[in-house]
Amino acid sequence: MQIGKETIPKTRISTSNPDTIIVRGRDLANELIGKVSFTAYFHLLVTGKPPSSAATAVLDAALVAIAEHGLVPSVQASRMTLAAAPEAMQGPVAAGILGCGSVILGAAESAGEFLEEVRLRTQGQDFTQAAKEVVAEYRREKRAIPGYGHPLHKKRDPRVAALFQVAQTTGADMTYVSIAEAIEQVLPDVVGKALMLNVSAAIPAVLLGVGFPIKALKGVPILARTAGLVGHLTEEKERPIGFALSYQAGLHAVYEGDAPAGFVPNES
Amino acid sequence: MQIGKETIPKTRISTSNPDTIIVRGRDLANELIGKVSFTAYFHLLVTGKPPSSAATAVLDAALVAIAEHGLVPSVQASRMTLAAAPEAMQGPVAAGILGCGSVILGAAESAGEFLEEVRLRTQGQDFTQAAKEVVAEYRREKRAIPGYGHPLHKKRDPRVAALFQVAQTTGADMTYVSIAEAIEQVLPDVVGKALMLNVSAAIPAVLLGVGFPIKALKGVPILARTAGLVGHLTEEKERPIGFALSYQAGLHAVYEGDAPAGFVPNES
Amino acid sequence: MQIGKETIPKTRISTSNPDTIIVRGRDLANELIGKVSFTAYFHLLVTGKPPSSAATAVLDAALVAIAEHGLVPSVQASRMTLAAAPEAMQGPVAAGILGCGSVILGAAESAGEFLEEVRLRTQGQDFTQAAKEVVAEYRREKRAIPGYGHPLHKKRDPRVAALFQVAQTTGADMTYVSIAEAIEQVLPDVVGKALMLNVSAAIPAVLLGVGFPIKALKGVPILARTAGLVGHLTEEKERPIGFALSYQAGLHAVYEGDAPAGFVPNES
Amino acid sequence: MQIGKETIPKTRISTSNPDTIIVRGRDLANELIGKVSFTAYFHLLVTGKPPSSAATAVLDAALVAIAEHGLVPSVQASRMTLAAAPEAMQGPVAAGILGCGSVILGAAESAGEFLEEVRLRTQGQDFTQAAKEVVAEYRREKRAIPGYGHPLHKKRDPRVAALFQVAQTTGADMTYVSIAEAIEQVLPDVVGKALMLNVSAAIPAVLLGVGFPIKALKGVPILARTAGLVGHLTEEKERPIGFALSYQAGLHAVYEGDAPAGFVPNES
Repeated sequence: MQIGKETIPKTRISTSNPDTIIVRGRDLANELIGKVSFTAYFHLLVTGKPPSSAATAVLDAALVAIAEHGLVPSVQASRMTLAAAPEAMQGPVAAGILGCGSVILGAAESAGEFLEEVRLRTQGQDFTQAAKEVVAEYRREKRAIPGYGHPLHKKRDPRVAALFQVAQTTGADMTYVSIAEAIEQVLPDVVGKALMLNVSAAIPAVLLGVGFPIKALKGVPILARTAGLVGHLTEEKERPIGFALSYQAGLHAVYEGDAPAGFVPNES
Repeated sequence: MQIGKETIPKTRISTSNPDTIIVRGRDLANELIGKVSFTAYFHLLVTGKPPSSAATAVLDAALVAIAEHGLVPSVQASRMTLAAAPEAMQGPVAAGILGCGSVILGAAESAGEFLEEVRLRTQGQDFTQAAKEVVAEYRREKRAIPGYGHPLHKKRDPRVAALFQVAQTTGADMTYVSIAEAIEQVLPDVVGKALMLNVSAAIPAVLLGVGFPIKALKGVPILARTAGLVGHLTEEKERPIGFALSYQAGLHAVYEGDAPAGFVPNES
Repeated sequence: MQIGKETIPKTRISTSNPDTIIVRGRDLANELIGKVSFTAYFHLLVTGKPPSSAATAVLDAALVAIAEHGLVPSVQASRMTLAAAPEAMQGPVAAGILGCGSVILGAAESAGEFLEEVRLRTQGQDFTQAAKEVVAEYRREKRAIPGYGHPLHKKRDPRVAALFQVAQTTGADMTYVSIAEAIEQVLPDVVGKALMLNVSAAIPAVLLGVGFPIKALKGVPILARTAGLVGHLTEEKERPIGFALSYQAGLHAVYEGDAPAGFVPNES
Repeated sequence: MQIGKETIPKTRISTSNPDTIIVRGRDLANELIGKVSFTAYFHLLVTGKPPSSAATAVLDAALVAIAEHGLVPSVQASRMTLAAAPEAMQGPVAAGILGCGSVILGAAESAGEFLEEVRLRTQGQDFTQAAKEVVAEYRREKRAIPGYGHPLHKKRDPRVAALFQVAQTTGADMTYVSIAEAIEQVLPDVVGKALMLNVSAAIPAVLLGVGFPIKALKGVPILARTAGLVGHLTEEKERPIGFALSYQAGLHAVYEGDAPAGFVPNES
């Protein structure tokens, strides 16, 4: 079935023949394997260009920052899935990645668009006024403020300073970092309470400063969390807790529906 | 519901408090972000230990080798999924990862178990006899030989030599590489045709030599391909081909079922 | 980690003890198995109430209408995934369901919200004026018009009349059907071309008339398509075409990136 | 890339032109919508044939039996995923389906193969001897006995009798039911403890008796559970508990790894 006008698939990423695999214009076997790090290769795959040294440092830091944070919902879902379906690891990984959503873990892209919106509104060097305007608009439209506030890290998430320091040290453009901090400062006035910068805003703040594209930002937590999931699933195979997590999750669950007369729920 | 005996979830990977996130015994913000590469961090997450320099080199090489190979089935499935469901990038990534299966892309783990089986059977230094025995057993049990043969690369997949060279150069243990080559040599006799080493056997051959655990091997193509999928989905957002791929896929499809009298199928 | 204020899970759907499973207030083994159809049970699960006879008829019709339409993108993605990963059928089904998105297949919910928006704006019995306003707003905000237009069925999708007839015959409330038709009539004027009602608007048009909740509408194409996917995957196991679909999809693909001097792409 | 020999996709399921959609030889709009139930259509999609009245009854009963059992792992994973990623319902449904695995929920197919194996070994009418042999073989090969034993229903799962009664009442062939019961009787001797028939063996026992194909058996719990997931996700949108489930799951988790001196974990 023809959907849309295009019928010929075109790509700039890769081609091959029996002897050679080309990726982004380079010979994979001779120019890339053993020559570039996985992080640099990820940059090349996504942007078509090798990263600057600042971009490599910042991208490594961002991937390390968001890969792992303990038994969070996506990890629990993934480990429960492996316990139920150990026959194919790709399934539990996929289940975990599906939790990389707009509410938690996957806000890097919307936070990046948010920072960019402030930048585009700013005239001169002071981001405060534009930040106030954009935050006020989000509030009017009842949109969440992406990248601010954290259920555990009520003071600033410790990963934020670490990311900003990598950007500073490696000479990355700090424009978006300044924007992110300007937003943090105006938030109490506009929203009525402090919402501190979290890692989902810090990641675009440093990555946009090294030219990483907004449309690929969500790929950063997704790729990073895949590494974390592989760690957890490897542990799950050795020391399974998927069903223990499920047991605990349901232990105090309350059934509020009807039941036939005389039914006594299981004292689980 | 209690399934199994364990009711308390236990983990050695990560814990945290409001100020500090601990991963594998280290302070994430102060000891890891900006200090280690994503590849080294992946090794730490999975094994609990930082990698040797050989392990980092080999793991980087393996991830680069398997991340991207053009419009393969998992990439096509992922791009079609983004075209149909652009609202959430994690969905198309998950769809692509689900194609990391036992037949293509995901054979690294079963190939690793295969190499290990030969190693355990070997007495002395010559792997040939053990290779013959294990291959013969796989044939008897009608199991696929994982990691050998490739639909495009009929001679040896060019990525194999590149991976072996990285292992050699960095001083990795070459035992499993020797095993992999011994198997390649006995295959024509036992199977009746040449099946050349492909990247799915080369990856465990080099990774087992630096101590990467067999149970985590499948995580390598999964993590690597996630990077490739992010590259393709970023291109898909800019230059969509998901529906063009689907159009081509169905263009010459033949309907072999019944139809009511007079029905003329669409000349698509 | 505590996210949000609620810490106690509560549900009205199901509870159990070793002897009895309660679903929506009924004893599953004694009151439901063998007593209700799967369609009626689906209604009970989602709404908490057994369906009227009109609701059963309309829900059956909607599920039958959207379950299957040949080798569409989600089916292709699913069959390619089974070909690559035959070890676990739930993976290919999940990959197919992930293509139930906002652009194709999954528009029933947004179409339902669209119809409801027109209803809420309407004063008296004539939906035309409200339809014009809401369509014009969607256009101003550059939102797609969900449920109108189809790549193949340029005249009205034949499933639309069939669904409307079931609703009519069974005595369902036809309000949303009238709204859907009013929108179809104003579309040429506001949008500049005819966009005929498709199945994704017809489904909410009939289901909202029997009290099916808007928030569950997307579950209808998802459940229906799962049945279609099981059909295709059963065929795929017997007569595999997943790799043939992938071969065709890539056969005429054009690589528009750079390549090293002398590289000749595979004449696939 | 050509993988395997087939290059032309062929299907017997569906074709269409702008006016007509053909499914399994019938005109979808004129012969199926409003004429057949979703359950009967599922049978038609999978087998190519409309079901007998016994087959419809048994298939309805099987789908109703396995659709819902409270806050089980797959439902918890799905609800956590919606809480994190509410932007696209297909993602949480897919995450839930991925838990339809070999250990829980998805054992219908392997249980069906197990019953069939006993049938093929049986000479005459007594299944006991063949049941003993096959169970003993499974034990020797350290394979799980699929479809027997349940973490909650230590006596026979109440759904089993309900399913068998539907089969009996509608005149279905009871051969596989007899086999399933023969296995249940020999298990204590061979395995050393009673393992009662659960719903995952009862489903193939009744479905194989009405000619449902073994290769499609796993589609039954997958389709059924999709209905259950839609029910839970609809409730989750109104009365969210995804994060409460995650909170409880992690509340008593124990970190057994190292930590820097002085680190005090969060008293969550």
